[in-house]
Amino acid sequence: MNSIEVKTGSSAYQVRIGRGLLDSLSAELESALQGQKRPSTIAVVTESNVAPLHLATAVEALRPFGARILQHVFPAGETSKNLDTVTGILNFLAENHVTRSDLVVALGGGVTGDIAGFAAAIYLRGIRVAQIPTTLLAAIDSSVGGKTGVDLPAGKNLCGAFWQPSLVLCDPDLLTTLPIKVLHDGVAEAIKYGVIGDRPLFDLLATRNLDDHLEEVIAQCVASKSAIVARDEFDRGDRALLNFGHTFAHAIEKCSDFTIPHGRAVGIGMVMISQLAYQQGWTREACAPAIAAALQRYGLPTATDFTSVQLMPYLLGDKKRSGNKLTLVIPETIGHCVLKTIAVEELQDILA
Amino acid sequence: MNSIEVKTGSSAYQVRIGRGLLDSLSAELESALQGQKRPSTIAVVTESNVAPLHLATAVEALRPFGARILQHVFPAGETSKNLDTVTGILNFLAENHVTRSDLVVALGGGVTGDIAGFAAAIYLRGIRVAQIPTTLLAAIDSSVGGKTGVDLPAGKNLCGAFWQPSLVLCDPDLLTTLPIKVLHDGVAEAIKYGVIGDRPLFDLLATRNLDDHLEEVIAQCVASKSAIVARDEFDRGDRALLNFGHTFAHAIEKCSDFTIPHGRAVGIGMVMISQLAYQQGWTREACAPAIAAALQRYGLPTATDFTSVQLMPYLLGDKKRSGNKLTLVIPETIGHCVLKTIAVEELQDILA
Repeated sequence: MNSIEVKTGSSAYQVRIGRGLLDSLSAELESALQGQKRPSTIAVVTESNVAPLHLATAVEALRPFGARILQHVFPAGETSKNLDTVTGILNFLAENHVTRSDLVVALGGGVTGDIAGFAAAIYLRGIRVAQIPTTLLAAIDSSVGGKTGVDLPAGKNLCGAFWQPSLVLCDPDLLTTLPIKVLHDGVAEAIKYGVIGDRPLFDLLATRNLDDHLEEVIAQCVASKSAIVARDEFDRGDRALLNFGHTFAHAIEKCSDFTIPHGRAVGIGMVMISQLAYQQGWTREACAPAIAAALQRYGLPTATDFTSVQLMPYLLGDKKRSGNKLTLVIPETIGHCVLKTIAVEELQDILA
Repeated sequence: MNSIEVKTGSSAYQVRIGRGLLDSLSAELESALQGQKRPSTIAVVTESNVAPLHLATAVEALRPFGARILQHVFPAGETSKNLDTVTGILNFLAENHVTRSDLVVALGGGVTGDIAGFAAAIYLRGIRVAQIPTTLLAAIDSSVGGKTGVDLPAGKNLCGAFWQPSLVLCDPDLLTTLPIKVLHDGVAEAIKYGVIGDRPLFDLLATRNLDDHLEEVIAQCVASKSAIVARDEFDRGDRALLNFGHTFAHAIEKCSDFTIPHGRAVGIGMVMISQLAYQQGWTREACAPAIAAALQRYGLPTATDFTSVQLMPYLLGDKKRSGNKLTLVIPETIGHCVLKTIAVEELQDILA
C-alpha cells in the first residue's frame, strides 16, 4: 500500500493506493474524516459504464460507515461533461436534502471526477468529496490536485473550480476491468510525468512491463503531481508544467470531435511540441524520438492527420492563453521541462 | 468618501463608498488592481432594468482604463437567478475569448452580483470581479463578503461559490434612481445589522431620516459585515449571525413564489424569530416590538398570512440545516444576537 499526502494552502489529504483497497472504503473514510463532522448522507455519483462494474461493490463497502447512501448515475462519455449533467447532480442532491456536512463520492474516470467534483464544489457553496478513480488516467491525473470542471460549447474545461478532495482512494484492481486500450490511453499521461520531471519513471515506462509495475507507476505519478500542486495550487506558475502536450492535445480532441481520446491526444501533443521546440531551436536536445518510441510500446499514436490550419482556431482558444500570449511547455531533456511564453502571432507564423 | 477594507484568508479588498464615485471607476480599478496583471478585456454584466439606467455611464467611466469593453445584459428579476443565466454568461465570456487575466464587472442589485460573481468564480476556474451595487440591499449585503450563487428548483442559493471581489464600488447616487419601495426593502437588512451587533445603527434607523444618512448607513453596515466575514469567511461560525431573520424569510419568499421581495421577507422573519425566541424563553428581552416599529417607519411589513403548516416544508429544506439540526439566530437584546442549534423536530413541535 502506498499513501501520498497532498498538501495545499487550505487542506491536506491522502491519496491511498493499494490493490483491493475499495473493500476498506468505510475505514479509509473514517480515517480521512477524523476530527470533522460526520456525514449522515453519502451520495455516490458515477456514470453508466462504471455503474454495472463497480457501483454495487462501492455501496457495499460504504455500508459499515453507517450513513444513508444515495446513488446517482449519469450517461457515460465525454459529451456528458457539461453544465446540464452538473445541474442534474445538483438537483439530485437538493431533492434528497443533502446538507453541508454530507459527502459526495465520485466513482469513475476523469470525466466523473471532474463533473462530480465540480458539483460538490458548488453545491451549497461546497461540500466534501472523495475520489475513487477507475481509470489509469483518473488515478494519476484528474483525481489528484483539486481541478474540477466541465466543458462549454466554446471549449474544454472552460468552467470549473479548484476543490480539493477529502480522500483519494485508488484501487489498481479496478483498472484491470478496463479494456487494454483505455488502460494504455492513461499511459500517455504517465509518460508525461516522466518527461516533465522524473527520468527513472520515463525509463521504467519505456522499457518494463506495465502490469508488473502498475501500483508503483501510479504512486510515482501521484507523488510528482502532488509536489507540483503543493508548489502551485491555483495554477499560476509551475503547475503549467502539467500541461505538457496539452495545448495541441486539446486542439486535436476538438478537431476530432472527441473521437480521439484524451490520452492519445496528449501523446501526439507531446511529440508535436517536442518536435516544434527542437526545430525552432528552443531546445538543443531532440526529445520527440524517445517520447514517440515510448508511446509506440503501448500502441499509442504519435502523429495526427489534422493540419495546422485545422488545429489553429482551437489553439487560439486555448484557455491557458493570457491576453495575446500563450505559455508552452518545452522539454529541455527527458526529465526536465521549462515554460516558454510566446505571442499568439508567433505561433501562428511558425505553424503557417 | 468612505473606504472599508475587507480581509479574508486569501485576499483583501476595498469597499469604496461615495456619491458620484462611479465616474472615477477607471481610477478606482487602477488602484484596486495595482501590482496584478492588467485586464485587457472588461466584461460588464448587468440586467435589463439596470442597463437603461446605468450601463452607458459605467461603460463611459471604464473608457480611460483602456481595455476592450464587453457588455452582457440578462433579463431582470429573481427568476433569472438560475444556472441557465450563468451558462449564458459563461458562453458569452468564452465566445468573446475572455482570458484568465481579464475582469468581470457586476453592475446591479443582489441578483446581478450573485449571478455575475458566480459566473466569474467558475469561468476558467475563477477570474477577477468588481462589484458595483445599484440597490441598498446589494450595497450593504450581497456585494460584500464573497458569497455568490444561484437558486435550484429545490431552493434558494443552493449552488454557488465563495469568491471575493477585487473591488466593491458603491455610489449612493445610483440608489436614488430606485423606487422608494425598493430602497426601503434594503432597510430591513440594515436594521438586521443593527440588531445583530450595532445598537447605534439601529437607533439611527429607528429615529432619523435615511436620506440624510445614506452613506453613513451603508458604511456602518459594510463595516459590520466586513468584521464578521474576516472572522468567518467560509460560514462555519459567526457568519451565521448574518442569517438573522433569514430562515423564516427564505420560507416566506418561497411560499409567496417570490412575490414578496427578499428585504420585506427578512423584516417579517426577524420579527417572527424574535417573537418565537421570547415566547420559548430562549431570551429574556422581547425584541420584536422595537424591530417591528423600526420596520414600520419604512412601510415594511412585520407579519405574514402564511401559516406554520405552509412554511414548514421550506423551513425543513433550509440549507443551513446540518443533518437533523438547524441553527437559529436569536436576539438577546437589540445589538446582540446569539446562535441556537435545535433539532428539526423541536422546531416542528413548537410551530405545530
